[in-house]
Parts: sequence; C-alpha cells; structure tokens
Amino acid sequence: MKRPDPRLAEGILLTDMYQLTMAQLYFRMGMHEAEVQFDHFFRRYPDYDSHQAGYCINAGLAWLLDWMKEARFGQEEIEFLRAQRNSAGQPLFADDFLEWLGREGHFGHITLEAIPEGRVIHPNEPLTVVRGPLAMAQILETPLLNHLNYPILVATKASRMVEAGRGRPVLEFGLRRAQERGANAGARAALIGGAVFTSNVGVSYALGLPPKGTHAHSMVQLFMSKGLGELAAFRAYAEIYPDDCLLLVDTVDTLQSGVPHAIQVFEELRRKGHKPVGIRLDSGDLAYLSIQAAKMLNDAGFPDTSIVLSSDLDELVIWQILTQIAAEAPRYGVDPDQLIGRLVFGVGTRLITSWGEPALGGVYKLVAVREGDSWNSAIKISESPAKTPNPGLKRIWRIYDRRGKATADLLSLEHEDPRQADVLLLRHPMDHTKWRTLRRQEISAMEPLLVTILDRGKQVYELPPLEELRRQRQADVERLDDGVRRLVNPHVYHVSLTQELWELKQRLIEEARRENETG
Amino acid sequence: MKRPDPRLAEGILLTDMYQLTMAQLYFRMGMHEAEVQFDHFFRRYPDYDSHQAGYCINAGLAWLLDWMKEARFGQEEIEFLRAQRNSAGQPLFADDFLEWLGREGHFGHITLEAIPEGRVIHPNEPLTVVRGPLAMAQILETPLLNHLNYPILVATKASRMVEAGRGRPVLEFGLRRAQERGANAGARAALIGGAVFTSNVGVSYALGLPPKGTHAHSMVQLFMSKGLGELAAFRAYAEIYPDDCLLLVDTVDTLQSGVPHAIQVFEELRRKGHKPVGIRLDSGDLAYLSIQAAKMLNDAGFPDTSIVLSSDLDELVIWQILTQIAAEAPRYGVDPDQLIGRLVFGVGTRLITSWGEPALGGVYKLVAVREGDSWNSAIKISESPAKTPNPGLKRIWRIYDRRGKATADLLSLEHEDPRQADVLLLRHPMDHTKWRTLRRQEISAMEPLLVTILDRGKQVYELPPLEELRRQRQADVERLDDGVRRLVNPHVYHVSLTQELWELKQRLIEEARRENETG
Repeated sequence: MKRPDPRLAEGILLTDMYQLTMAQLYFRMGMHEAEVQFDHFFRRYPDYDSHQAGYCINAGLAWLLDWMKEARFGQEEIEFLRAQRNSAGQPLFADDFLEWLGREGHFGHITLEAIPEGRVIHPNEPLTVVRGPLAMAQILETPLLNHLNYPILVATKASRMVEAGRGRPVLEFGLRRAQERGANAGARAALIGGAVFTSNVGVSYALGLPPKGTHAHSMVQLFMSKGLGELAAFRAYAEIYPDDCLLLVDTVDTLQSGVPHAIQVFEELRRKGHKPVGIRLDSGDLAYLSIQAAKMLNDAGFPDTSIVLSSDLDELVIWQILTQIAAEAPRYGVDPDQLIGRLVFGVGTRLITSWGEPALGGVYKLVAVREGDSWNSAIKISESPAKTPNPGLKRIWRIYDRRGKATADLLSLEHEDPRQADVLLLRHPMDHTKWRTLRRQEISAMEPLLVTILDRGKQVYELPPLEELRRQRQADVERLDDGVRRLVNPHVYHVSLTQELWELKQRLIEEARRENETG
Repeated sequence: MKRPDPRLAEGILLTDMYQLTMAQLYFRMGMHEAEVQFDHFFRRYPDYDSHQAGYCINAGLAWLLDWMKEARFGQEEIEFLRAQRNSAGQPLFADDFLEWLGREGHFGHITLEAIPEGRVIHPNEPLTVVRGPLAMAQILETPLLNHLNYPILVATKASRMVEAGRGRPVLEFGLRRAQERGANAGARAALIGGAVFTSNVGVSYALGLPPKGTHAHSMVQLFMSKGLGELAAFRAYAEIYPDDCLLLVDTVDTLQSGVPHAIQVFEELRRKGHKPVGIRLDSGDLAYLSIQAAKMLNDAGFPDTSIVLSSDLDELVIWQILTQIAAEAPRYGVDPDQLIGRLVFGVGTRLITSWGEPALGGVYKLVAVREGDSWNSAIKISESPAKTPNPGLKRIWRIYDRRGKATADLLSLEHEDPRQADVLLLRHPMDHTKWRTLRRQEISAMEPLLVTILDRGKQVYELPPLEELRRQRQADVERLDDGVRRLVNPHVYHVSLTQELWELKQRLIEEARRENETG
C-alpha cells in the first residue's frame, strides 16, 4: 500500500468533514456561490483559573495567508473524497460536485479583512472578516480557526509574561511541551507577544532570527559520570564559548557548587579578556537563589552578568519572584532594582500551552448574506444574549481619550463614520440599560482597526515584518489604561455598538424571535 | 529576500538550540561519538485538577520514526548554522563541526527500544530507550519529546472518555481548538486512545479512515436568513444525504423545534425507504434533553436512531450525563440502558488540549555511558528522591496475577530474567521501607514490554496498523484492576525495581553524594 503523502494532510484537507458535506449541499441547492460574510471573533478573554486577561494580542494571520495561497483541491484530494461512501455504500460525493471542487476549490475568490497581527484585541469584535462564495467560505471555517485561535492565545500569554517581568527579556523554550508541530506556530506567536527569542531552531530559521540556548543538565551530568565534575564541564563550555558563557548552575547544588564553580570559570575567562554572560537557575526558590547568586557574583566583581530563570514560569510566578526580590534582596545587601535589571526569563510549558486556559473559543459566524445588490444581515439567536453575534457588515473604531489611552472599541455599520459625530453614543452590546457618551473634545484620536488583506484572493496588504508586529504590540499595550493591563482583576475594556448597529441588532433579534415562534 | 522553506523548520531543525551548542562541545572534546543511553519517561500521571489518571496510553512512536528517517542536516540547514554569530561577532559553529554534522548529522546510528503504541504505561518506566553516539542522541532529545509527550497525553484522555462513556463511540472534533498543526498528531493519538473516528479530513486521509461529520448551525441559520426555516434546512439535508441523515437540532429550540422537525423529516425518509441516522445535541442540559429527545423519537417509532452529544465534553461530564440519565430517564418512561446504548460522544476542545493538564512532563535522561566494553550507569541526584532517574540498562516486565490482571510493572537490569525466580521481591523505587513479594504461583504471566524498534538506524520492527493499536489499548485497559481504571481517585499501580537494580541505584546515589561533597 502506498503511504499517503503526509503533507496532503496539511493542505486543503485540514478541515472538518461537515464543511464538505455542507458544501455539497449548497452546491446541490445552487447556493454554493452565493456571497456571504462570516466574522471571526472570540467571546471572552482567556481565564487562567485564578486570573483573567484584560486584553488579547492578535496573531496568526501571516501563516493563515500562506496556507490559503497553497490550499486547493488537487487530484489526490478529490480522489480521496470520491472514495468516501455513504451508509448505503454509494459514493458520498457526486461527480458534478467533485468536478466543481477540482475547478473552484480554492480561496481565489475570498475577500478578507483583518485586524493586523500584534494589535491589542478584545471580545466580540470581528478580528477577521471573510466575504466570498458560500461553499469555500464555509470550508475555510476550520482552517481559519485552526490558524488563528492558538496564536492569539500564546501571543496574549507572552504579553502578560513580559508585563509581569517589567519588560525584562522573555525567551520561549516550549518546543518539547507543545502539541507536536503546533510548537512552531506557538513560538512565532510568543515572539509577536513580546518574547525576544526562542530556543526553537526551526522556527528561528523560518523567521530569520538567531535561536538561543546554551547547555542542559545532561552536559554537566555527563562530565560527572566520567569522574570529571561540574567545574570541568563549566571549563569545557567556557573554552568553546568564551564570549557566550552562560552556565546552568543547579545540577549539583546551586549555591554550594554551581555558582562558586561558575565564578571560578568567569574569573578565568576575565583573565583571558572575555566577558562572561551569566548563569541560569532552573530549580528551587528562584527569588531566594537569584538574590544569593547575585550577591556572590557582585562580590566577585561580576555585577553585570545575567541571571536567567526558568522552571515552570508563568506571569503570576514571575510577578511573585519580583515581589519577593523587592522585599528580601535589601536584607542581603543586594539592590533589588539592580538584580531585577539583570534577570532574563526562560518560559516553556506554561507559555506554549497557555496554562490555565489551553484553548481560545474563537468562532466563525455567518453575519450577512448578499441578495442581489444588497446584503441581508443574518443572526443566530442564542439562549444567552452574550452569544448573539453582532450582525451585518461592520467597521471597528478604536477611540483614544485625551491622555492618548484607548478608552473603547466601537463597532459601527459599514457606512457610518463616527469621526464626524460631535457626541458619540456608545451602546453596551447586550444590556439595553447601559450606554456611555463621549464628546468630541474628550477624544484625541479614532482609528479604524480592520484592514483589507485579500481582495477577491489578491493580497492587497503588505504583511509587516516581525519586528514591526512586536513594536505594534508594545505601542498598543502602552496605550491601554493601567487598570486594563493589570494581571489580576483588570478593568473591563469597553467594546460598544453605535446606536444604528444596536438598533439593527435589536430588530433582527425581534424578527428572528417572531419567526421562531410562528415557524 | 527569499522566503525560507517552512518545511525545513520541521526537519532536523525541530530541536532546541542548546542541543547544537552541546553537540559542538562534545565534538570539540572528542566525545561526540561516545556511546550513551538516554531513557524517555514521565514522572507522574496527568492530574486534571480534580482528578488524576491511574494509567496512561502510549502513542506517537510511528510519526517519530517517520520524522527520524527523513531528518538530517542538509546544505540549507548547515548554512543557517554557519551564519550564526557569537557575542563577539565570530561564527558560533566551527567549520570542522559543521562538516561533521553535514556527514553524520542523521539518526542512522541510533538504536531505539520502545513500549509499543496503544499499550498501557506508567510513570518512571522507560517508554523509549535511545542508544547511540552522544551528539546525535542529544540532538534527538527535543524532537523525541515533541513527538511523544503530546500524543501520550491525548491517547490517555481519549481512553478515559471511552471508559466514562461505557464504550459508546467517541468522535474526535478538536481541529479548530488545537495548537495549529498539532491537531493532526492529536487526532491520531485520540484514535489510538479509543476514539472511533475524527472529523479531521486530512488526518483521516493520512490514516486511511473515513472522516466523519454532517452539518453545523450555520447551515440551518443560512436557510433561516433566507426565510426558509429549520424544517427546510433539514429537508434539504435529508434529500441530499437520505441514508446519512443526522440532524443538529439545537439551532432554534431543541425540544420545541429541532426534534419535532427532525422527526417530521425522518418520517418522510422512512416513507421513501431510507433509515434515518439520528440527531445531535450541542447545547443545554444534555442529559435532560437526550431523555426528552429519546422519548419523542421512541414515540415516533425511531428507537434506534443515534443521539450524538457534543459541547465541551470530557470524562467527568460524560460520566455525569450517564449518571443523570440513569437516575432521571425512568421518570419519563425511557429505559436508561436503551438510551445510553444509542449515545455517541463528539469531543473537541477538552480532548485535543487535554484540558486540566495540557502538557505531559515527559523527560529524556542520560542513564548510561559506554566505557570500552562495559556500560557505566549515570545518575543525576536531585533534591527530591522522586526525580532521581532509575540508572543503567534496564528491562521492564509486566506481571499478571492469577485473575490475569496486571498487578505491577517490574524494572530489572538488562541481564536479569525475573521469570526464573521462585519468589519475586518488588522494591519501591524510592522508599526503602516498602517492598512486596510475589510467589511464582501468584503469577499467571510475565511479559517484557520493551521492543527493539531501530537497530543502528535500521527498522527491525513492523509497526502495527492503527486497528491493532486500538485493540492493544482495549486489551491492556481490560487487564487493569478496576481500581486502577477509576476516573477519580484510582488505585496506585505498582512500578517496582528488582533488588539488584535497587541496590545499583542506592550505590550510585551514595557515590554521587560523596563525590559532590568532596568535589
């Protein structure tokens, strides 16, 4: 038996079966090329058990576009579908549908708007807007969610870790703990979210970054098994990497063995004219050990060496470590700010898995259907008002207050330009008793967030380089109110509707209710 | 700028940078081709907050082998490494090392033993044993963990869901909630763990299975947005898929609209000589709704139709649903066993992410180094005894009691054959006060678990087909004591050491302690 090409499993077939059965149904009904709009959005911030995010970071778009460009139903995919049988043993997919799929089964007719990667994003606002022929827009649902849900989650977690670490460098180390190949998308998202480098060599190659890493416990252990000891291992490392000497000091005993041996080797390096880089602590009470190690390094004349911390770090652990250092370092004659200023955080499991909330419930909902020259807004009424999507073709405006801080994201209908209004009415998306008004003089800027990326399959937006996405994230986070940036119990950022959109939503809900009752 | 080939990011470069810097160090020291052994194992069962697993299911080996066969340092990978700079701006990797890597940078010298996929596995026993030249065995650490940690996690969670569902079919639906491409490895692991099918078309293609799926809410909603209603949507589906008619009934209102409309369509199908398949419930109180839906379907003469449940299911939710059905169904004149016997579970997020514990802490530890004709056992002493690995070259024996149930896994040294002993002494791996004896007549069988897969790069084991792995899982789970199979608070399964291995471990720990103190 010929083994199927595993790469085909990652092309257009990276979708759910029901997208294909629905596509055939639309084909059979003559609806497959009807123009529709789906909105991609999430409904709530990730909630890591004890603490919920106050904002998210958008990520994943570039690799989705790469995938969409290549994905199409080729001969082998069509033959696989042709071989599928229904319960009666007959072909599940008819020849005319497969013939259409072989011809039109690609994303060359899709128009896609999106909030760019690296931007701060919030619940219930469309992050990605897909317009195009029904069948292919439907098939795109699963791969779009697959490419975007997870990177948003990791970029968000990374941004929280960078915030907790007061901007000190965060390195991504999670390759061994990821969902297999998902590690690469996760590492890229971590970099967008503010991690400076990753240990993952492959994704560094793909992104044009230098991968980072030094040595593991196994190196020290190997030397020990040969009767050579930790000091010999450190010396060997220093000899081969004299300008990049960063030593893992906790294989035997951090303060009794590792740090003294590292200092001995650093002194040898200094005599030879090299500048040692630092140490890494990977176990134990990291705050206490980093204070003691800093004191020993300071006393030996190495106050500038880095102290890399790793071992199941997340934003709360980092926050706790910095708090403990601030409280305890002075007791040992160590300046806490000086110590914090030399820390580097290596984060693995808890970043790459978004520990506490390992999936984002991003969804892809039908919001409008074209009828002739106009668009009909579609709505699904859900039992919970929070789950009713905002209908129709929309724009998103980020409103900055007089301090230059983002104060709300406002969803409007496509023809509206709220920049013209003297007084803005911001309606709560669900609660009809809640609204807020903003006068023009309270507003320093209003910025549209959605950008057209694909125009009927043609890319009309130049994807910014990674560095630009990282600057964008930092700028957006800095323009959030401190209350929204808090790691625990953040303020709720406002995502509001214009009066016109709010009225449309109410009207559609009432119509749908009536229809359900009579139908 | 030429965009780097993303596939290269998934070849030999799918590793951590420190593996390469260590490999160069070993090369420089002349140790790169020293023969060593690394053991891959995990230290504790996944703990999903409120409940911990009592066993795991092994998975991931076949795709690791596929990867190892293809992975090697080619020209482009070497050039990427050659371009890396140290802090002084000099090349990080020397030409002689890169030349060696270009020649010997593959896994053709690796010998690999493993417990086969689909088998029940436990903590602190070697699941995968790698022997070979140090540098390449070291580089293999990250990709091996990347390929094995996650599938074990998902196969284990799937097995728990199948157990909770009393063997009723479990379908894997998680593609949109996975870590991007990790979805494919996750779906395969779910199938090994007992899921019957997946909605993921690509991985079904790669594994030669039919993908499963019917339709989403969006189909019903589309018909509604055109003023056609739910019934018209169901009729359209039934017309195109008359022999595969499974209808999602909760878009409008499950009991007021969805189920009555489904029954109406089923009656129409029956008149045309087709057998309707069933309904799917995706929201609300699934136990209550399934009882009511079953009653309506029974009354309409469709007692055999399936009821598929989905919506954030995991093993506890499934367990709760079955408990509630058993308690409440009789009150409505529904036979609970008949109802349970028609249930199917569609599981997404909580399976593909292993909700509650989204990473397995599998590790890869140096346990032996060859010196001339003999092997020296290596050990890393950790502050916690539980983290000290079992040293040396080992075998694993699964011991079955007179009922045919697995009662312990016994780790021995390689030359030992505990099948010869009249009385077996099973030592607790850490606690010297704990042991257990088994007389030969208490034992019905003893089975070695490790199989040689690669002999110096050559595959000497035929990988069983997926169906065989699934049978193996089921057989292994059935041979566990009921206490170990429990979803919550399972009995602790014994993983023990022979007296000889126990003594070696103690001796090495003492030697290492002495050396640390004097060194």
